[in-house]
Order: sequence, then structure tokens, then C-alpha cells
Amino acid sequence: MNWRPSWLHGYNRWQAGQDGLAALIVSLMLIPQSLAYAMLAGLPPVSGLYASILPLLGYALFGSSRTLAVGPVAVVSLMTAATLGPLFAPGSAEYVGAAMLLALLSGLFLVAMAMLRLGFVANFLSHPVISGFISASGILIAVGQLKHIFGVAIGGETLWQLLPALFGQLPALHGTTLAIGAGSLLLLWWVRSYLKPCLLRCGVAPALAGDLAKAGPVLAIVVSILLVTWLQLDQAGVKVVGAVPQGLPGLRLPVLDLQLALQLLPAAVLISLVGFVESVSVAQTLAAKRRQRIEPDQELLGLGAANLVAAVSGGFPVTGGFARSVVNFEAGAQTPMAGVMTAAGIAVSVLLFTPLLHNLPQAVLAATIIVAVLGLVDLGSLKRTWHFSRADGAAQGATLGGVLLLGVENGILLGVGLSLLLFLWRTSRPHVAVVGQLPGSEHFRNVERHSVVQSPSVLSLRVDESLYFPNARYLEERIGELIAARPLVRHLVLMCSGVNLIDASALDSLEAIAERLRSAGVQLHLSEVKGPVMDQLKRSDFIECFGGQVFVSQYQAQQALDPESAQRALAR
Amino acid sequence: MNWRPSWLHGYNRWQAGQDGLAALIVSLMLIPQSLAYAMLAGLPPVSGLYASILPLLGYALFGSSRTLAVGPVAVVSLMTAATLGPLFAPGSAEYVGAAMLLALLSGLFLVAMAMLRLGFVANFLSHPVISGFISASGILIAVGQLKHIFGVAIGGETLWQLLPALFGQLPALHGTTLAIGAGSLLLLWWVRSYLKPCLLRCGVAPALAGDLAKAGPVLAIVVSILLVTWLQLDQAGVKVVGAVPQGLPGLRLPVLDLQLALQLLPAAVLISLVGFVESVSVAQTLAAKRRQRIEPDQELLGLGAANLVAAVSGGFPVTGGFARSVVNFEAGAQTPMAGVMTAAGIAVSVLLFTPLLHNLPQAVLAATIIVAVLGLVDLGSLKRTWHFSRADGAAQGATLGGVLLLGVENGILLGVGLSLLLFLWRTSRPHVAVVGQLPGSEHFRNVERHSVVQSPSVLSLRVDESLYFPNARYLEERIGELIAARPLVRHLVLMCSGVNLIDASALDSLEAIAERLRSAGVQLHLSEVKGPVMDQLKRSDFIECFGGQVFVSQYQAQQALDPESAQRALAR
Repeated sequence: MNWRPSWLHGYNRWQAGQDGLAALIVSLMLIPQSLAYAMLAGLPPVSGLYASILPLLGYALFGSSRTLAVGPVAVVSLMTAATLGPLFAPGSAEYVGAAMLLALLSGLFLVAMAMLRLGFVANFLSHPVISGFISASGILIAVGQLKHIFGVAIGGETLWQLLPALFGQLPALHGTTLAIGAGSLLLLWWVRSYLKPCLLRCGVAPALAGDLAKAGPVLAIVVSILLVTWLQLDQAGVKVVGAVPQGLPGLRLPVLDLQLALQLLPAAVLISLVGFVESVSVAQTLAAKRRQRIEPDQELLGLGAANLVAAVSGGFPVTGGFARSVVNFEAGAQTPMAGVMTAAGIAVSVLLFTPLLHNLPQAVLAATIIVAVLGLVDLGSLKRTWHFSRADGAAQGATLGGVLLLGVENGILLGVGLSLLLFLWRTSRPHVAVVGQLPGSEHFRNVERHSVVQSPSVLSLRVDESLYFPNARYLEERIGELIAARPLVRHLVLMCSGVNLIDASALDSLEAIAERLRSAGVQLHLSEVKGPVMDQLKRSDFIECFGGQVFVSQYQAQQALDPESAQRALAR
Repeated sequence: MNWRPSWLHGYNRWQAGQDGLAALIVSLMLIPQSLAYAMLAGLPPVSGLYASILPLLGYALFGSSRTLAVGPVAVVSLMTAATLGPLFAPGSAEYVGAAMLLALLSGLFLVAMAMLRLGFVANFLSHPVISGFISASGILIAVGQLKHIFGVAIGGETLWQLLPALFGQLPALHGTTLAIGAGSLLLLWWVRSYLKPCLLRCGVAPALAGDLAKAGPVLAIVVSILLVTWLQLDQAGVKVVGAVPQGLPGLRLPVLDLQLALQLLPAAVLISLVGFVESVSVAQTLAAKRRQRIEPDQELLGLGAANLVAAVSGGFPVTGGFARSVVNFEAGAQTPMAGVMTAAGIAVSVLLFTPLLHNLPQAVLAATIIVAVLGLVDLGSLKRTWHFSRADGAAQGATLGGVLLLGVENGILLGVGLSLLLFLWRTSRPHVAVVGQLPGSEHFRNVERHSVVQSPSVLSLRVDESLYFPNARYLEERIGELIAARPLVRHLVLMCSGVNLIDASALDSLEAIAERLRSAGVQLHLSEVKGPVMDQLKRSDFIECFGGQVFVSQYQAQQALDPESAQRALAR
């Protein structure tokens, strides 16, 4: 673990210029996103801005990616809302305090994982689970934001709850709000799909055209603020952001309510893991493009630091964001100094520009969220995964359906549980082949695929998998079955060329197998045991007690146990 | 699945004689055990007898073992007490009803597992977890039963609760009860350790000597009943079993309280899994001795049926017991008819002999439990496991400590969680070797172990593990690391001879790796992909899209990508 960033050494003017330009572009993108994700998380808009200042510094100091842009992101904001929504009134002081506590717990958990080098725990979240989770989150977020577009008030955490509530409120929809919301959706969709080709055709340089196309949200915000101010639409019932406190966040610890902390802990763990997985995959993708490296344990530390400072500066859980990191990278960011400069940009905005945001309609923020998250929904991926592997497809489908219908936490736990179950099922039945001697050679092959010579008194089995607890019992059953069908057999040779590991469960199984075979008048032997596996077996008394021999090769085993058959096969 | 037992066909007189003898001996053993385990489970003694009648018939009809003896067992009784103790007053009608409901849930769960062929789920309980759990249960049970030996009243589910309560009550101990309890313990211990050699020296036949030595509990019971009756010790405050209802259990469903059922479900699942694992390992050990076979899914059905009939006949959760199955086997039982006859024996006892049990002291039952369960405690196993493998030892130690200090359910969940975590950790870092060409051959070997020829522009990696979600991310990191250190490399060949499976997570990783390599100017290729893995890859668009080639052998890859280096190595 290293807290002294290597990039600081030899930082030069060219890098500073590049970082500064990237920071300017990312800041412009981050302001509307921060406001929108704070609204999604059920927090006052200023919390989003606070979460985009100090956390960026925290990550810059400890993270290992040079171009990752940290801050509030859609999925983590949804998880924050799903955790705190049932407990407190959104936007209340208790809610804000609990969000800070959630960030604190998340930060502590991430730092603890870094210290214990537990980054591998994120492997519990397999790709199909993550993918199903993100698609479902996108749908849930988009449906949840429709209330701001329609100008109605509904609550709910699952499709079951959201859709009926939304339809029930349709008669009460607010026309002007709908006009603004739908207009923003159309504008954002047009900018996203058509602005760049349009600008290119007009002769604008590609890089500039790309940046302008990403400025759609800023455009929508400026236009809508002007419109609301000019027509005094806030007087006509269009909900606006309202007064945003001016000035930097004060540093203060969240209220340390131990009982609440225990209640929030499972959600904090899940938020941390999901955020970490998302962030690391973005960071790795970007780092590889410049042949740089990401250290997962260092990333844990960086994200942990970001969340800890979010917790003491009025923020909420943050992580690395995909879209803004790509913009940062493409705008030429060279070092985490770009993050520091972005933080400075947001800080200046909070100091100077928040009064300008008063008349920003909530419907416009909702529209920017909807357009952003619909890009996350990839239902085709479910079909591809199912086609590739039924087991993975089932895990992805269960996560998707689970998140939509049972809520965020239950859905992800369902997916993780199912993928562990399917994984056990898959590895619980390793390939075990009966082998015989290839005529005229010392090689042993699967009797079902080759025409080989088998000895009547010696049964040879090849196991194509490490022996550990998921498959220990299966081996016992399989051998029992094979022996029960072959009354003449007196020796069983286990060919271990494919065995990379034997754990304690498998050792017990081997002992049980040896004993059961012995009581049935059959002796167990091993052959072709790899060095490390043999070292491990020697740490138990198995080798002394099992009564059989360990042969270097399967042919030697055959020669020792049934020399006649071995010679006959060799001579053919 | 088969419900028509194959052994019924051709059942003969010799088998009937053998089965009858075994049934007589097992019945004698089962009566005190049934009373004792019912007391351990917090139920009236007669519940234990009821649980030893119909469940034996249920198993005989559907189970696949010919010699397994089913009934109440120590560990499952402890789990029943731990589940119901905090909810109801032991021995009350609600408690009895809840125990029946628990057996119903357990039976339904086992039958559902059988129908869905989910026997492999028991693999979640690795051997170290089971072993730690059983040792800890033995200690907990023994300490818990001391209250009956001392004649005091205490409660508690963990060592934290039991030990202080016991010491606190010591001043109140009941002398006569202690004398009877300690006397029984001594008698049972002497019978267990010295009676058999003693009888052998006196010229008794070994088989009979063994059976007599196992009749210790019956001896203790008869002697103590006579003593209590003669000296009227029940008047002197020695707690006795009291009136045991005479007659067979009436058939009735437990009260179907849905909320209670939901509350009991997790415990029922755990009880079912633990019972199944225990029972199957006993059944397999015995079946192997006669070259018979056990079908795990059929076993699930048999145990499920046993628990379902326990639920409707006033019983509680049952499973196959180790000691009584061994006695049944050694006494010569040939078919499940021995179980049917044992059930008849217990039924006759309930009809005729229960009045004789009135004066049986609880302290004697406690002594039989203590002597039986101390045989389950094997702390040496923890040391052996730790010596064999740190990871397995940690899982076993955590389960042992967890059960003793946090209770039965929490302990087992801790163990399962830790062993899954350690398993992920172990498989998350597969062996990845950089390989080079052995001079003068077409073989490729690990560069760290052999003096081989490496091409400067082609990096060849061999992965010795299937590619699936626990290690998908590690491969991305490892390749990123290797490529970052080798700026001259233009091709990366992944040698897949050790890859038996690629799941959706690994497929995503391979796609990410290919793309990241491409953006760093390196092309990914594969070599020596096994047939089934290739079939699976073809179900995605990876092969078309990754831009590289799939070579039959590593040598062909080298020849195609850097012919000069391949030829040079071959010529050396």
C-alpha cells in the first residue's frame, strides 16, 4: 500500500495544461450530474455538489488510476435512496445525516478491505449478476424519475409499487411541467443522437464536436432556467431546485448513532462492493489504453478515502463514474491532478454560481437522469448470456427480475446466491474418465473415446479437476458406483494429472474411499500426483495410512499391479 | 426416483431372520436414546418414542440404504432445542406443535430437494465445517446436560450463557441426583471402555460381547429405575421421567401457523442439510462394505418421508444415526425390513412398557447423552486440519468457536461463509505461467522452471485453471501487468490446455482483455482450446470479433506469429 502518489514526482507544465483542460470539461459535465444524482438519492441538490469536491481530492491522493473521475453515480445514488427512503423523509436533516453515515460506513469498509487485501471478495459479484443489476437499476431509476416529468408525487422502491402509483396519479399531472420535461427529453435525445454528425457535417473538428455533443445537459439547464425565469413558471407550479446554499461545506462528522449504523451496514457493504466493481472495470479499461496499471487494493484505498471525506463534508456514497471518466480521459487528462482541478472547479461553482440554479426545473434534472440511465439498460445482453450459458443466463435474469420486483438489495442477493448455487452445481460433477492403455504405447486414454486395453483386476480413473469440497462427495459416489459394477476389480488407481489442489474435505473423502474400498477387497493407489499436491498430502498421514502406492506414471502402476496386461498391451 | 423398494422383490426367510435379530438389538438401544434425545430437544419423553415408529417406516419405503437406522439424533435434537427454546416453554403444547411443524418443514424441504435433484447443495457444508460443528455441538450438549446431573434448573444456548448459569446454581445442587448422575456416568464409561475386553477374557463370544457392551444404557436405566422405586427417591426430590402416555400416537397435522412457519424455515433448512450430510455419509460407509450403492437423491426422499410422517405422528426432526446404524449393520440387518421391525418393537414398547419408565431419573438420561456425545468431540481433528491446510483449519476453528459462543445457527453460517470466502480466495488466483519453447522441441514450458526460448514479440501464457467468475478479474489484472512490463510484445497467445470451462464472466473478461490489448497495440490469440470449450465459445461472437486466431498447438502459434524464433528454437 502506498499513499505517496508516484505521478507527483516530475509533474510538468504540459501535464498541467492537459489536466486543466480536462478538468474544465469534466466540471461542466459534473455540475448537472451532481444535482441530478443528489435528487435521485433523495438529498438536497447541494449534497451532490459537496460530494463532488473533497471526495475527488481523497481519490487523487490514494487511488491508482490516473484518469478515473469520482463522484455521485446513478446506481449508487439509487442504492442510497433504496436504503434510506424507508427510514427517513427524503431531504430531511435526518436523511442527510444518515447519507453521511452511509458514506462513512462505506469508506471504512473499503479501507478495511484494502488493509486486509480483500479485493477478491468483489468476485462474488459475477459479470452476469452485475449486468442484470445495472440494467434493472437503469429501468427502476428511469421509471422512478417519471414522477418529476409528470409533476406528480409518488413513492416506491420496486416496479410493483412504482407503476400502479404512477398510473393512479396520471389524472393529477401538471401540464407545464410535462411540457418542460418532455421537451428536455427530446432535446437531450436529439443532442445525444444527432448533434455530433450534424456538427461534423458543418465542418466542426471531431474532438470539439464530441465535447459539444456531451454538453447537452448544460444546454438544457441553461435554456430551461432562462425559460422559467422569463415566464415565471415557478409561480405556475413548476417545481424548481430552489435556493441552494452558497459556500463550501463545513467539515463535520455524521451523528454516530450505533444502532442506525448497524442497520445501514449491510447496505453499505453492498454499495461498496458494487461501486468498487464498477469503478475498477472503468479504471482498468482506461489504464490499459495507455499501458498503465491499476492496483485493486490501492483502488479500494482510493475509493475508501473518497467516501470517508464525503462523509465529513456533507456528501453521500461516491465511486468512479463511467461517462465522466471517459470524458476526462478523452479530454487528455494525464494525472489525478485533473481530479484536483475538477474539485476546484466545482468548489468555485458552489461559491459563485449556486444562486443561478434557483429556477432550474426538477423535470429537467429528471430528464438528464433518464437519458443517462437508459444507456445502462442492455436487455440484449441477457439474451446473449442465456445463449452462451443457461446457468449464467439464469443468474442474470434472476438478478434483473429480482431488482425490478423485489428491490435493489434483495435482487442482488438473489443473483449472488443463485450464481454461487449454480457454480457449486457446475463444479460438483467433475469429469471422471475410466482410462485404459493405448495398444503399443505407455499412454492411457478415456475408454469411451479410444480403443484401449483394460485390465480386469485394475480399474484406472482420471479426474480432470482439483479435488475440493464442491466435488468431494461426488467422487465418493462415482467410485462407489464404478466398483459396485465391477466385482472382479482388486486395485483402483486414481490418475491425478489434472488435480491442482486437494483440500481437507477431499482428503477426508479420499480416506473414506480408501477405507470403503478396502472393506470391499479393493486397494486404492495414486499415480501422476503433482509436486505441490504431494507436498500437501505429506502434511497429513494419508500416504502412510491408505495402504496403497503412489506411482510416478500410470504405466508404472499398471506394470506393478497387473504386469501381464501391461506387457500384452505394449506388445500389440 | 423410485418408490418401489427393490429389496422387497425376493425377500426370503433367512433375510427375515437376520433383520428380526438386528431389529431386536436396535430397539433395545433406541428406547433410552429416544427418551434422552427428546429431553435434549426440550420435548416430553414420549415424543422421542413417537419419532422412532412411523419415521422408520417412511424411510424404509423411500430410502436407498439397506441398513441405515433412522430416528432422533443428538445434533438435530440440539438444533431443534436451539430453534424452539427462545420461542416457547420447553415441554408445552405450543413447543410440541412447533417441533412437529419444524419436522414438516424439514420434510417438505428434503422432498423438494429430491424432486429438483438438489442434493449437491449439501456441498456448501464442507467437511471442516461439519467437523467443527459436530465437535462444538457435542461440547454444548454435554455442558447443557450437566444441569440434570447436578439437579439444578438453568437455560442458555451458548457457552457464554450456560457456564456462568451453571456455576451460579452450584450451591443449589441436589446431592442424591448428583450421586445417581455421577454413578451413571461412571457405569456407562466403564461399560464403554472395559466391559468388552472383560467379557472376552471370560470367554464370551466377540459378537455377543460387543452387543452387551452397547447395552450399557439399558443396564443403567434398569438399575436406576429399580433403585428409585425401592428407595422412593422421587419423593426425595430426584427428578424422574414421570407418567409417559401409553398407546400409539394419533395421526394429526401440526397447526399450520404461516408466520411461525416462515420464522422456522431457515432453521428447518439448516437442520435438513446437516441431517442429510450426516446420514448420507453413514449410509455410504455401510453400503460400501457390501458393495451396495446409495443414491443421494433417493436418500433425500427417504429422509423427507421420515420427517413428514414424524410431523403427523407427534414427533420431531429425525435423520440417520451413526451408532445405531452401525449396530444394525453389525447385527446382520439385510434390508430396510429391519427398520420396519424396529418400528414395531418400539410400538410394542409404547403400548406395554411405558408405565415401567415412570421412575427413570432424568439424570440417567443426561448421563447417556453425555457419554454418547463426548464421543463426537474430536479436537485433534482441528489440529490435523490446520496442519494440512490453513484455510480449512480456519473454517473449522471458526465453526467450532462460532457454535460454542454465538450459537448453533450463527456458528454454522459463520463457517459456511468463511469457507466460501476462503474458497473464492484460493480459486481467485489461478496459476498463470509464462511459457517458452524448449530448445530442439515443439514443447512449451514454464520459463521459470526450464531454460526455454522466448520470442521478443510473442508472449505465451498458460492458464492452469478453468476460467470462471472467481478468477475472471485476476486474469485481466495479470495480463495487464505482464503487458505493461513488455513494451516490445505485439502478440499474446493464451494457451488453454488446462481450461475446462469458460463462463460468462470469463468471456466478458476475455473480450475486455482483447480490446484493451488491441488499444495497446497487442493482438490476442488462443491455442490448444479443448473441444467443449470451443463449442461454448462459438455460442458467442467472441471468435469472430476478437480479431486473433485459434491455433491447434502452441508451436503452430509460434510458427505463425514469429516463424524465425520458432525455427531457431527447433534447430538448437
